[in-house]
Amino acid sequence: MRGQFITFEGTEGVGKSTQLANAASTLENLGVDVLVTREPGGTPMAEHIRELLLATRDEVVHETTELLLMFAARAQHLHTRILPALDAGQWVLCDRFTDATFAYQGGGRGVSQERIALLENLVQGNVRPDHVILFDAPVETGMARARRRGELDRFEQEDLEFFQRIRNTYLDRANEAPDRYHIINAARPLNQVSEEVVQLLTGLLSPTGHG
Amino acid sequence: MRGQFITFEGTEGVGKSTQLANAASTLENLGVDVLVTREPGGTPMAEHIRELLLATRDEVVHETTELLLMFAARAQHLHTRILPALDAGQWVLCDRFTDATFAYQGGGRGVSQERIALLENLVQGNVRPDHVILFDAPVETGMARARRRGELDRFEQEDLEFFQRIRNTYLDRANEAPDRYHIINAARPLNQVSEEVVQLLTGLLSPTGHG
Repeated sequence: MRGQFITFEGTEGVGKSTQLANAASTLENLGVDVLVTREPGGTPMAEHIRELLLATRDEVVHETTELLLMFAARAQHLHTRILPALDAGQWVLCDRFTDATFAYQGGGRGVSQERIALLENLVQGNVRPDHVILFDAPVETGMARARRRGELDRFEQEDLEFFQRIRNTYLDRANEAPDRYHIINAARPLNQVSEEVVQLLTGLLSPTGHG
Repeated sequence: MRGQFITFEGTEGVGKSTQLANAASTLENLGVDVLVTREPGGTPMAEHIRELLLATRDEVVHETTELLLMFAARAQHLHTRILPALDAGQWVLCDRFTDATFAYQGGGRGVSQERIALLENLVQGNVRPDHVILFDAPVETGMARARRRGELDRFEQEDLEFFQRIRNTYLDRANEAPDRYHIINAARPLNQVSEEVVQLLTGLLSPTGHG
């Protein structure tokens, strides 16, 4: 049976990566064969593209260059790693996917949603995550957490508005397709959030409730 | 005044790069400010992407990954180098551009022309070369030349058919837009080909013929 393709999304400091690791071990304990991966990256070639994207350089990287590199890495990851794993029956848990492009490049930086949707169709055809788990928290909460972890040096008004646009884009997308998106209130204590994720995943294992 | 954007296209061994160097010095002698560049590449970032494209690796590079990397390099080259040069009045002579993608990836390897056209529009908007100089010669002639230069080790039937499809795609595109494409018979001796290129370029300098 084809595996489930589940992506973990959200802004900085919402605990997404911790929850992903936790979800993977929960599923493995239940006997599910799990592939944990992340974007951008996920294959050696895609990781090289990630390095190109993240490298600081003198040259200004044009917005379209960045968008195409992002989707080049995604094409490689999806076609050579994610889809073969799903076909082999593995569940794929992926830290960020195309929703992050819509949220960060689209909502955050103002790249046109149409251009992103066009590349999504070109690269993915009709492949979409079966489930998107959106960890949602007020931007201030997430940023305060990220700052405590030393991931943010400064906390400026500009950042706040940028992340607010990202959060809003995530929420808009989730509200448009409530069957595929699961909004989890990530402002609560870690163990409460974990519990809800585990409940969600075990529900997917026995979708009829008779499992 | 905006410069002319002129691309040099053709299959292996047609003398394209020699002719480009020659054309550049001819134009410079006539007082034209010329930028000579090439694809894929043309900026440090685009050259990095070129390296990624050309590197041999264990991982199979998916067709869509390759196509997106090609256009990512092109976006960077076009927006950060070619368009600013044209705006500053320079003439840009570019060794291969999007026609090569249609010919090699499309005609040669069977990537859908629609997918290429979609990326062309996404990256270039309505920017197209003002003139495409297509150096055309029978595939056998070009391959024999390339082999003599040591660029080809073997000369197989498969290669012949592959390059034949590339040549045909170039010719089809040229015949669809004869105002922008200039087909030059590159099977003739080098000096005759050069003469025709120089004539063509000086014609562009004084388009009314009263120069």
